[in-house]
Formats: sequence, C-alpha cells, structure tokens
Amino acid sequence: MANLNGKTSDLRTAFLEVYSVLKSELLNDPAFEWTDDSRQWVERMLDYNVPGGKLNRGLSVIDSYKLLKEGKDLTEEEVFLASALGWCIEWLQAYFLVLDDIMDSSHTRRGQPCWFRVPKVGLIAANDGIILRNQIPRILKKHFREKPYYVDLLDLFNEVEFQTASGQMIDLITTIEGEKDLSKYSLSLHRRIVQYKTAYYSFYLPVACALLMSGENLDNHIDVKNVLIDMGIYFQVQDDYLDCFGNPETIGKIGTDIEDFKCSWLVVKALEVCNDEQKKILFENYGNPDPSKVAKIKALYNDINLQGIFSEFESKSYEKITSSIEAHPSKPVQAVLKSFLGKIYKRQK
Amino acid sequence: MANLNGKTSDLRTAFLEVYSVLKSELLNDPAFEWTDDSRQWVERMLDYNVPGGKLNRGLSVIDSYKLLKEGKDLTEEEVFLASALGWCIEWLQAYFLVLDDIMDSSHTRRGQPCWFRVPKVGLIAANDGIILRNQIPRILKKHFREKPYYVDLLDLFNEVEFQTASGQMIDLITTIEGEKDLSKYSLSLHRRIVQYKTAYYSFYLPVACALLMSGENLDNHIDVKNVLIDMGIYFQVQDDYLDCFGNPETIGKIGTDIEDFKCSWLVVKALEVCNDEQKKILFENYGNPDPSKVAKIKALYNDINLQGIFSEFESKSYEKITSSIEAHPSKPVQAVLKSFLGKIYKRQK
Repeated sequence: MANLNGKTSDLRTAFLEVYSVLKSELLNDPAFEWTDDSRQWVERMLDYNVPGGKLNRGLSVIDSYKLLKEGKDLTEEEVFLASALGWCIEWLQAYFLVLDDIMDSSHTRRGQPCWFRVPKVGLIAANDGIILRNQIPRILKKHFREKPYYVDLLDLFNEVEFQTASGQMIDLITTIEGEKDLSKYSLSLHRRIVQYKTAYYSFYLPVACALLMSGENLDNHIDVKNVLIDMGIYFQVQDDYLDCFGNPETIGKIGTDIEDFKCSWLVVKALEVCNDEQKKILFENYGNPDPSKVAKIKALYNDINLQGIFSEFESKSYEKITSSIEAHPSKPVQAVLKSFLGKIYKRQK
Repeated sequence: MANLNGKTSDLRTAFLEVYSVLKSELLNDPAFEWTDDSRQWVERMLDYNVPGGKLNRGLSVIDSYKLLKEGKDLTEEEVFLASALGWCIEWLQAYFLVLDDIMDSSHTRRGQPCWFRVPKVGLIAANDGIILRNQIPRILKKHFREKPYYVDLLDLFNEVEFQTASGQMIDLITTIEGEKDLSKYSLSLHRRIVQYKTAYYSFYLPVACALLMSGENLDNHIDVKNVLIDMGIYFQVQDDYLDCFGNPETIGKIGTDIEDFKCSWLVVKALEVCNDEQKKILFENYGNPDPSKVAKIKALYNDINLQGIFSEFESKSYEKITSSIEAHPSKPVQAVLKSFLGKIYKRQK
C-alpha cells in the first residue's frame, strides 16, 4: 500500500486503494445473495457516484487523526481505519447527491450526467441512493464492530444524517415550486439551512470520526463541534458569494443562484440592508432566468456594496473562529481546527 | 393508557397512543432547530404515511413479546417499549412505500393518493422518505440507548434495511423499462426477490425485536430466522396467487401482476411446467394491458392446473414449516412461530 504518512498525492493514492478494498468487500457482502447482474450494477453505481469528487471530507479524517496523534507515524491499521471512516463520509455524500439530483431535476454532477439521467437507470437511482446509505453501516460493522467506540460511531452517523436530511427539508419546503416568496427569506433561515444541510456532515463529521478513533468522548467536545459548525457556515457563505462574484474559470461553473431563486447569503443580506425602493427591485427581479433581470439584481448588489459587506463578514468570522480555536485547551485539537480554517480562509474556489 | 394486555381492539388503541407519544417527541427532537413550517410539514407527512396501514408488523412485536413472556402481564414500560419497536417497523415500512411509489409511478396507496402525488409534495417525498428512515434511530436512541441490547437493535435494523433495499434492487433491475425478458424469470430469482424484499422486514424483524427485548442473543436463533423467512416466502406466494385467483372484493383490489410483467410465483411456476407451445403463449402475451392477452395467460394458468400446483405448495409449505417449528426446543418460541403461521395459513386476503 502507498504510504499515507507521505505527501499529498501518495495520500490520495493510498486512500483510493482503500476504496477498492471496501468496494470488493461490499460486492461480496454475505448478508445478501448476489446475482451477477446485481453485483455488476452495484459496482458500476459505486464507481460512478462515490470516488469522483474532490474527496476533501474523506481525506480530512486521516489528516485530522494524524494531527491528533501529534505527528507520530500511524500504523497500517490506523491508516486503513481512518480511511474507511473517510470513505463512509464520501458514501454519505454520494447518497445525498444522487437523491438531491433527482429532487432538483439536475442535469450534470462532477462533469458527467447525474446518475438518474444515465440510460436504464432512471428512478432506480432512488434505490441506489438507499443502497449507498445502507453500505455505510456494513462498512462500520465489518471494521469497527469490536471497537469500544462502535456504538458512538453508529450514533454519530445517524445523528448527522438526520440533521442533514432536516436541513434539506427546510431548504425544499421554503422553495416549493410556484411559491416563490422572498419575504420568507432571512439570515436566520439561511443560517439554519446551511448549518443543518451542510456544516454537520462536511465539517463536524470528519473531525468527530477522528476524535472517536482517538478514544475521545464526543460529549466532551461540544466546543469543537460549535467551532466547526461556524466554519461550515462561513464556508457556505463563501460559496454563495463566489456563485455571484467568483471567477467562473476559477470556480469551474457559472453561478445561477439568482436565476434559481436560491436562499443565498447575498439575497438575505441584501434584504436586510435595502431601503424600500431597493427591496421592490429585489422582489420584482429575483428568481427569473431573464438576463436583464439578473443584471438588475447584480447592479443592486453593487449599489449596496455587498462585496464590502462580505469582506467584513469574512474578517469577523475569521477573528471569531480563531479566538475560539485559541481558547481550546488542547494543542493537537487546535491544530486540527486551524488546518480546516487554513484550507478555507479567503478561498477563491 | 388503554390496556395492551386486553383484547385486540384495545391493543390497537393502546398501540396508536404510543404513536402519538413518539410523534410528539420527534416533532420536538432537540437535534434539530424546528421552524413552524417544518414541524407542520413533518406532522402532516407522518399522519399521512405512517399509521394508515393494517399495522400487522408493528402489532406482532407486542404479540410475540407477550408469548415469549409466557402469558405474564407486561409492565407499562414493557408495553411501551415493545410498541415503540413495533412502530419503528411501521416507520420502516412507510419509508419503503413512499420511495417505492415514486419509483413505480404508482397512483394510490391505502386508498388515498400516493404521498408524492399530493399537491406541493412532489419529489420532496423522496426526502420525506429519508426523514422517516432517520426517525427510526432517533426513536431507538431516545428509548433504548441505555439497554444492553441497544447496539444489537441498531445492527438489526441496519442489516434488515440493507437486505430489503438489496431485494428491491434485484426486483428493479430485472424489470428495467423496455427490457421485458421473461427468460430472466425463474423460481430461484423469485425466491431471492421475495426473501430479501419482503420476508426479512415483515416476518423476521418483528420477532427479532421481541427476542432482543427478552434478552436473547440473535446469533442463537438462526433457526427461528430461517422458519420466519420460509413463512415470509410462503406469504408472498399466497399474495401472488391471490392477485390472480383471489376474490377482488375480499382482497380489496383488482390484481394486475400479469399486465405489469411482475415476477410472480405464478408465471415462474408456469415457465417451469409448460411445454414449448405453452411457453410461446406466455412469451407472447405476458406483460401487456390488452385484456384478450391477459385472458390467454389466465386460460393457460387453468390448462396447467396452477391452482392445484399452488394447493400442493401450500400444504407442503405448511408441513415443512410446522415440523421446523416443532423441532424448536423452546415452547414460548414455538408459540410465537405458530401464532405467525396461524395468521397466514390458507388466508383469503
């Protein structure tokens, strides 16, 4: 196996080797009597949906675990287990994306057609999402059943999945087709959607996995959770900002949040600072594919200096998060949190 | 609370009271920051999808647990906990049905429009299915976290859900739109679909829950599992039989398995006993809404005496299951299994 204690590209290679191991175990799971057809189907479905992303969430479990071990070399078993937990997060992500794409009628994902748009797949994709989700406890049972933290791992994945689905729910029901109502949007709703739909599984979950593997009790780390949730919210606000003000070549897509009537941080902030006349412009032009209407929204964003307001938010978030991190009694935990913050502060993509 | 040790109607009433308690706990789950809109949405979604079925699976947890306690009156706590586990199975069922209806483009369920067909719901139903699924571990954590069998309960629900989703997968991929190929159908495929898609969660899961509550280790009850799986298969064969030969007024629906190209026990049995000429009739007429083609299939079923073949299957299954039950060393376990068998043997609906 390539050395996960080494440099980044090796780490990625070793991480992908663990994917192959997990996949082959799942395709021979004794809890099911496989047919040739079903084994081929699942293999293709996994390769299509699981390993094709940036793998940041999965890789950060290993990173975090290494930092918690304060630079000591990891044993082969530790590397494998941390990678397996990282993959469980990637599996969780794949499950959400497959189902979200169906619900949003999306077309492409990671540069290829969404899974449900692949010929012969269609709505079988919904069950494939369920299969992905069900493979997580299979991986956990196979590799962690005898660990003292097994039940905590199950509880953790269950709670985080519940929170993510709940965040997705408030996002979906506030943007029900045919009920575009900007007056429902507020900073507090935006924070709630982002915190539940994204922050728990993307920021808290990887670190919580690493903490459990290190023998920590998560009840003693509420402060770590809170900092990571704050980082997750800050990350999503950046995402909303870059959708409108980022360089399409750098971020790899052309943002359409304005056209799509998204509950973006930009529009809720605008609603907060606008005068009545400007609000009227927002209500009349937001959520429409007409380019002249989109242009009016963007002009308004400039008039109220949203870029400046964002910069201020960014500095304040950074200060707040940094001082929370520095208040933490454990240097290795500080290192984990600083590493996350370093990766996202002032990111352009 | 109505007395669950009493007669059937009381038992149902008491069981439904537990539903109200669980629902209200879920609507105030502290792991999520509820908005008024989201609380109302989930309440309506639960009332629409969870309690409207026959509740056989859920009620049988309490029945089985009582039999395992050999007639001793249950404490209020035992009644509540057995009911809560029963409801977890009803929640699991609701989750499967909500998603299956989307995948099958169904129209009605339990005498009302399928949830995704309700105005304003649409594909949000897919996330609602996920919410239903995620509420099961919330119920388990709230009421069973301190029980010695908590981790076994989580493993049990995870494994059974995995098996059900896998059974659904082979059902879906053998009947992919536009690939109606009868030569794929066989008794062994039929058995596999039925065993995984239905038998584990409908027959094994309720008894396994009762066994865990009684302090039993499920690894010592592989024989109980096998008998229940056999009963589940027998139950589904009856279902397939009644779809074609049952009285529509008694079974409450007009069967359409022939029109829908279903992998029914009847067609796989017919494929097994037909001569080449009869096989040709099957291949040319199965899976078509044209009533004259359906009639040809039904006439063929009569020609080969499928009703007689079914009767023989029914007797043999009954004998085999009965002798397995009688070979079991524990009288209370025998009572549980006989109670299940008594409920389904020679059923007309």
